Amino acid sequence: MAKVIFGVDLGGTTVKMGLFDTEGNVQEKWEIVTRKEDSGSHILPDIAASVQQKMAEKSIAKEDVVGVGIGVPGPVDAKGVIHKAANLGWGVFSIKEELSGLLDGIRVEAGNDANVAALGEMWRGGGEGYSNLVVVTLGTGVGGGIIVEGKILTGATGAGGEIGHIHIEDGETEACGCGKCGCLEQYASATGVARLARKRLEKDDAPSSMRGREVSAKTVFDAVKAGDAVAIEVAQQFGQYLAKGLAAVACSVNPEAFVIGGGVSKAGEVLFDFVEEEYRKRVFHGCADAKFVLAKLGNDAGIFGAAKLVLD
Amino acid sequence: MAKVIFGVDLGGTTVKMGLFDTEGNVQEKWEIVTRKEDSGSHILPDIAASVQQKMAEKSIAKEDVVGVGIGVPGPVDAKGVIHKAANLGWGVFSIKEELSGLLDGIRVEAGNDANVAALGEMWRGGGEGYSNLVVVTLGTGVGGGIIVEGKILTGATGAGGEIGHIHIEDGETEACGCGKCGCLEQYASATGVARLARKRLEKDDAPSSMRGREVSAKTVFDAVKAGDAVAIEVAQQFGQYLAKGLAAVACSVNPEAFVIGGGVSKAGEVLFDFVEEEYRKRVFHGCADAKFVLAKLGNDAGIFGAAKLVLD
Repeated sequence: MAKVIFGVDLGGTTVKMGLFDTEGNVQEKWEIVTRKEDSGSHILPDIAASVQQKMAEKSIAKEDVVGVGIGVPGPVDAKGVIHKAANLGWGVFSIKEELSGLLDGIRVEAGNDANVAALGEMWRGGGEGYSNLVVVTLGTGVGGGIIVEGKILTGATGAGGEIGHIHIEDGETEACGCGKCGCLEQYASATGVARLARKRLEKDDAPSSMRGREVSAKTVFDAVKAGDAVAIEVAQQFGQYLAKGLAAVACSVNPEAFVIGGGVSKAGEVLFDFVEEEYRKRVFHGCADAKFVLAKLGNDAGIFGAAKLVLD
Repeated sequence: MAKVIFGVDLGGTTVKMGLFDTEGNVQEKWEIVTRKEDSGSHILPDIAASVQQKMAEKSIAKEDVVGVGIGVPGPVDAKGVIHKAANLGWGVFSIKEELSGLLDGIRVEAGNDANVAALGEMWRGGGEGYSNLVVVTLGTGVGGGIIVEGKILTGATGAGGEIGHIHIEDGETEACGCGKCGCLEQYASATGVARLARKRLEKDDAPSSMRGREVSAKTVFDAVKAGDAVAIEVAQQFGQYLAKGLAAVACSVNPEAFVIGGGVSKAGEVLFDFVEEEYRKRVFHGCADAKFVLAKLGNDAGIFGAAKLVLD
């Protein structure tokens, strides 16, 4: 029988799961609830039970499972050990060993969810064809995943690719979620773009279609597309901040491409009009040719990347 | 007979060479001139001849040479291909294949000189015991080398670790050597520190021992040690800039340690008084525990790292 892989994306409310062939084609997708009670002690047993149920349902023999990959919302080191995931009630332990034990020895690989999603985009998403890339997720926060020669850059404590917390603005007085002031995330996330817009609107009375309603990143980029001058100013600010952050990342890891995903990226290619030129203005010439592409897998990036983990 | 390695550090005026055992003990060091005439076409044959001469002199058999590693002043990709080294008159070709051909098939590995020096510091220098580290050379410019899980982070075009060109100051009007304005190198190199000092001295008449003489990075840090208030101000500025740059690097690659070398580092541990606290103020908490240590190998880092290249 053909070999299969399970890809698991563990989130704070649901666990997304996928059954894949070894080429990265998804054969089935499903979800289970993330039971966080009792310090998250049910989570891995629930995942193991769901994998085993699917194996029974599809008559998949243990020998035909290459492995189970899992992305989790917290820092996971290169050995598959989680270093606390407050959101799940988890402390420090080997996800790799524990889940493998629950699965009768089936091979398990674990990684941080943002990093794992980046691997997914490389394998079958916007980053296909590249092996040195940076995946940037512009959502509620700014997440990042760095892939070097086809492998996740995990870092010393699993904080590799935490590019949302690059300090980018000395003049900031409001605090980021991380406690520091002036992080990239405060300007380039969906929340950040909306904040930039509110601040700009408060500054003067310049006419704008964004006035008099709730402003989100979508409002801003819709207004940009309609030619709203104030919105364009906000997008330029956003672009300068993001470009500054990505230029710093590039001088470290020199990627072939930046793959941009998350809610803000739903604005589409117009985003790049505000980022690419500013990026090239600031970056070292040896890194100026990096491509900017959109992520493709959306919420499925996690299960794809998790599956790819066990192929490495 | 015991196995040996040759480590070669190719510079613009001399080629440093070292004969090593496989544990990283240097048995002999020597130099030859870098003959740059005729588009640098004599350089590799000269190196090959010097290696062969040493082998003859020491009766080293070809089978006992694990390989020859070489660091070169230009971008070298992961396959050992140089992508132009203007300083040497070189275009694009495989150093690995060409030098190996000249050495009767002995294995050759090549890398960028700054990256190779970083590997040397990891192997037998200030970074010993770490496998995720960033080596920062504060010399005429600011060079960098990033090591991830024991391997050089080369990047897509060999520009990995070019941290001297992280854009760090929007308000800069003078250009960096790279042509852009506001690079880390303009503030944290030896030249940059001297420039910060000159600017500070011009600002007002505050008394300082640095007045009335040529100011270098050494002058500044000597004055800092003597308690000169103006020099301390300059060192603080230097520390803030360097910290900002290193915090951005850390949010990308999350190193265990920063190893600081180059002329400016001769000031010693006092340097860290100005950098560490500013670093922790700005960096993501997951990266805050990175150690700051001094480089140890000085100008020999290149030959050590080059030798290590062939052990990987």
